[in-house]
Amino acid sequence: MSANRTAPQAAAGPGAVAGQVVVGVDFGTLSGRAVVVSVADGTELGTAVHEYTHGSVEHRLPATGAELPPDWALQIPQDWRDVLADAVPRALADAGVAPEQVIGIGTDFTACTVLPATADGTPLCELERFRARPHAYPKLWKHHSAQPQADRINALAEKRGEGWLGRYGGRISSEWQYAKALQLLEEDPEVYAATERWIEAADWIVWELTGAESRNPCTAGYKGIRQDGRYPGRDYLTGLNEAFGDFTEKIDFPLSPLGTRAGGLSARAAAATGLPEGIAVAVGNVDAHVTSAAARALEPGQMLAIMGTSTCHVLNSDVLAEVPGMCGAVKDGVVTGLWGYEAGQSGVGDIFAWAVRTALPESYAAEARERGISAHELLTEKAAAQPVGAHGLVALDWHSGNRSVLVDHHLSGLLLGLTLDTRPEEIYRALLESTAFGTRTIVEAFEAGGVPVTDFVVAGGLPRNRFLMQIYADVLRRPIDVIGSAQGPALGSAIHAAVAAGAYTDIRAASAAMGKVDKAVYTPDPDRADVYDALYREYRELHDHFGRGGSDAMHRLREVRAEARARRHSARQQDDAEVSR
Amino acid sequence: MSANRTAPQAAAGPGAVAGQVVVGVDFGTLSGRAVVVSVADGTELGTAVHEYTHGSVEHRLPATGAELPPDWALQIPQDWRDVLADAVPRALADAGVAPEQVIGIGTDFTACTVLPATADGTPLCELERFRARPHAYPKLWKHHSAQPQADRINALAEKRGEGWLGRYGGRISSEWQYAKALQLLEEDPEVYAATERWIEAADWIVWELTGAESRNPCTAGYKGIRQDGRYPGRDYLTGLNEAFGDFTEKIDFPLSPLGTRAGGLSARAAAATGLPEGIAVAVGNVDAHVTSAAARALEPGQMLAIMGTSTCHVLNSDVLAEVPGMCGAVKDGVVTGLWGYEAGQSGVGDIFAWAVRTALPESYAAEARERGISAHELLTEKAAAQPVGAHGLVALDWHSGNRSVLVDHHLSGLLLGLTLDTRPEEIYRALLESTAFGTRTIVEAFEAGGVPVTDFVVAGGLPRNRFLMQIYADVLRRPIDVIGSAQGPALGSAIHAAVAAGAYTDIRAASAAMGKVDKAVYTPDPDRADVYDALYREYRELHDHFGRGGSDAMHRLREVRAEARARRHSARQQDDAEVSR
Repeated sequence: MSANRTAPQAAAGPGAVAGQVVVGVDFGTLSGRAVVVSVADGTELGTAVHEYTHGSVEHRLPATGAELPPDWALQIPQDWRDVLADAVPRALADAGVAPEQVIGIGTDFTACTVLPATADGTPLCELERFRARPHAYPKLWKHHSAQPQADRINALAEKRGEGWLGRYGGRISSEWQYAKALQLLEEDPEVYAATERWIEAADWIVWELTGAESRNPCTAGYKGIRQDGRYPGRDYLTGLNEAFGDFTEKIDFPLSPLGTRAGGLSARAAAATGLPEGIAVAVGNVDAHVTSAAARALEPGQMLAIMGTSTCHVLNSDVLAEVPGMCGAVKDGVVTGLWGYEAGQSGVGDIFAWAVRTALPESYAAEARERGISAHELLTEKAAAQPVGAHGLVALDWHSGNRSVLVDHHLSGLLLGLTLDTRPEEIYRALLESTAFGTRTIVEAFEAGGVPVTDFVVAGGLPRNRFLMQIYADVLRRPIDVIGSAQGPALGSAIHAAVAAGAYTDIRAASAAMGKVDKAVYTPDPDRADVYDALYREYRELHDHFGRGGSDAMHRLREVRAEARARRHSARQQDDAEVSR
Repeated sequence: MSANRTAPQAAAGPGAVAGQVVVGVDFGTLSGRAVVVSVADGTELGTAVHEYTHGSVEHRLPATGAELPPDWALQIPQDWRDVLADAVPRALADAGVAPEQVIGIGTDFTACTVLPATADGTPLCELERFRARPHAYPKLWKHHSAQPQADRINALAEKRGEGWLGRYGGRISSEWQYAKALQLLEEDPEVYAATERWIEAADWIVWELTGAESRNPCTAGYKGIRQDGRYPGRDYLTGLNEAFGDFTEKIDFPLSPLGTRAGGLSARAAAATGLPEGIAVAVGNVDAHVTSAAARALEPGQMLAIMGTSTCHVLNSDVLAEVPGMCGAVKDGVVTGLWGYEAGQSGVGDIFAWAVRTALPESYAAEARERGISAHELLTEKAAAQPVGAHGLVALDWHSGNRSVLVDHHLSGLLLGLTLDTRPEEIYRALLESTAFGTRTIVEAFEAGGVPVTDFVVAGGLPRNRFLMQIYADVLRRPIDVIGSAQGPALGSAIHAAVAAGAYTDIRAASAAMGKVDKAVYTPDPDRADVYDALYREYRELHDHFGRGGSDAMHRLREVRAEARARRHSARQQDDAEVSR
């Protein structure tokens, strides 16, 4: 925290009044974070984190204990409310500012995290009759079991020549609104029928704050399929499923531009958070996209990579190009007036965590404990002691599927080059490298598609790993800029709140005053880059072989796995039924 | 041990005298084992194991501490002598028999384990002037750095249409005598020039026992290139390297049939072992091959798999066929009168040990310790709780290269199908399965090549894992017979000693009286076999893609690795030199 927490700010922004603050709240995968920020210059005055009680619900439904099928991931709305009630007042206390100093609140959310709700915004899972129904719960972004629906969405769009498909790189992801909704319809039609609103958590949380529904253009464009002012037509929807024809009615509501005021803080939300009633609530937004403002990466060509559990790439451009395999191109999707591009890697930090869970021997765990460092730090240190390529390994970073450029969540991870000498830190390093290769694949796709990438800026938790960042610099052969804040999304939300409250005229102005970035913190080493080039060639060969039809082994193995697990699942349900009899 | 250790045997073999015993000594990769066996019926009366002081020398030369290049594996001859001096008398004591009851000793060795020696049998590494020279030491079977030489050996043989190449499945292995000798010549010509004998450890140890050189047809055929009574000609050798033309002079000495008497135990060896001077010493032999006699697997069609660190497959047949990718077909190579076939998998138990070293989390290690079971037992138990295919994984068992059917030690291991859910026991199981798939590939190659496989018999340490054996039965869709001895090679050597001593007319008669096997201990389950068929198809697709030219990624990665390690190696040597200055 800054030392001069409560002191009036020296250099206030154009519309900022000394002492004014905004609150940004970032809803992540496992927790939510509130930050209190000076409107004048973006100084972060206080913060608090609230861990979700239920985290990411992947194995059993908390309400009943029933086992979930493979590749599911749900969340519990009350966990989100708890962030507002717990983290916001604590952040205020941490900042030592009075509630009256707060002129606005902004939020950002993981996406596509989407839920079925009634017309008054009540999540269906909170209705007594639906509490035991998994499909009534919010589906977290990494809910990955709607791939069959995504496949049909893409096949039909291609067949019908739907113009919007190219805007999404030719592939709609199973993570997004349409695939998840179609899965809901087909697996639990009763819950689908009761769904009056199919709404992003990003918008639902704003509804919680203002008491009135509002929708944002970012999730509508990137996670819905809204292009050129409209959603896909009824004919297309009924082609997917006769009963899907009414889907647009559940999502098509007026959009408000990013950074504008969605409404005033409701009395109920004011009571819960301790903030003044009526202050500006910014339109909903997405964690990655708001971070562009925090990292001052809003100009055309500046690619921001938000690196954590997964990585999201956000890039603005003054040109519209349809880049194969990118997540989406949305006008005004990041900042009003530019085409916002999004791409992503489904698994990054998640994969490193998997390596620690899976390939960290007892002696390594003991060494890390003894030295008071984390397992990640130990593995990084051991890995960094080796020259590039000495492990002889190459990995595919698809443990959680591939979001860009293949848009296929039924791909899986691969490790090649294993020998009896292969050590855990070598596997760890190969996994670090594989995510850098995944990023390079995305950067090259943008450039080949006509969207120049001039700068590479990183944010999120992973940039703390300096060795990882150097790998990225070497693999990309580019300098790496680093955001100057450890809480980029929350700062970005706060910046949006400042604009919504009228302290700045627009996001670019607010970003220039309140955002923070350190330029060229890492620069590439040509010798290491040469060896990485050789490894990257192997990565690309495997990428294309297993991802583009050379071998369909990953899909077939996933089917074998699904069948085996379905047999076990039904055997267990039989056991449960017998026990309860 | 049998309860009636010293009592006269009830049912003596035809030429056996009650109370007579033989000693079998098995020289393994890390230790040697002596067994004292009743001549009459093969009862194992006593045993002792001696661990080699230096084991497999892979990182630094003990004499100097100098670092070895990658893929080296050496041994120290004194370690072998120590087995004779330590384990043999202890086995006798354990058996409670008097030395006078011993009528013969037989030995078996890993192969190709080969060393340079003088004309009197002194290992060159024991000459003061060569003790610092890595190439003066015995090269262990798993010394894998002569692949470039093996590649040239094969290319030239193919180009010249050498008739013997087909007998080795079309590929001479880098593990064998010629590749290792050519590497010696090219990397240390001075040691090569001093090499008067290039001799298998299997023959060298018999020389130690009798004081006179003898050679056996098994290693000459399988590890040398002796076919139809002769070695490759001088023209071929000089085609490999002008200076290699004299190589035959270092290996071509008279052969004695397997199971015959190489000589009498020398006074020196009698003193060292405590055995009577002059008793029969059987001709040298190979661990896998002698085990056929112990497992009563000498008839045509009976395939014996000796499963341990690696797996060796031995199969007799009355037909000669040239099976692509098999290690070798040698007349009288296993039992006089039949064509003996050999095949193998370079890494099996080694790979499971790698998994325990690499992917055994701390909590698993603690659980195993608490329950007093081994890590292998714990992983097996967890893996066995899953239905076939539920892990969604397929692995290639090439961590130590592929001996059959691809004969390429620069291949490497692969894991495909990894997800964030993948657990250590699933990786472990996929590795168990991959070795069963490797075995199936070999069995199918024999049958497709015209050599029928009627029985599948297992020996070695791994058959103790019942889950693993059931996987093999399911994957092969065959019943599995199991040898009735825990010390098959040593028992096999003892059987050969009994024949050498004249107690039986031939190996088949001795095997019938002294060998032990339990038939059809495991039988396949059709439902599981169906799912394994699906996984095997994936294995074969990857096998052919990465092993047969679809992708050369493994070779390229090994080159990248070798270059990176060579840079580090030379950097370290420079460091060493600077320190010693």
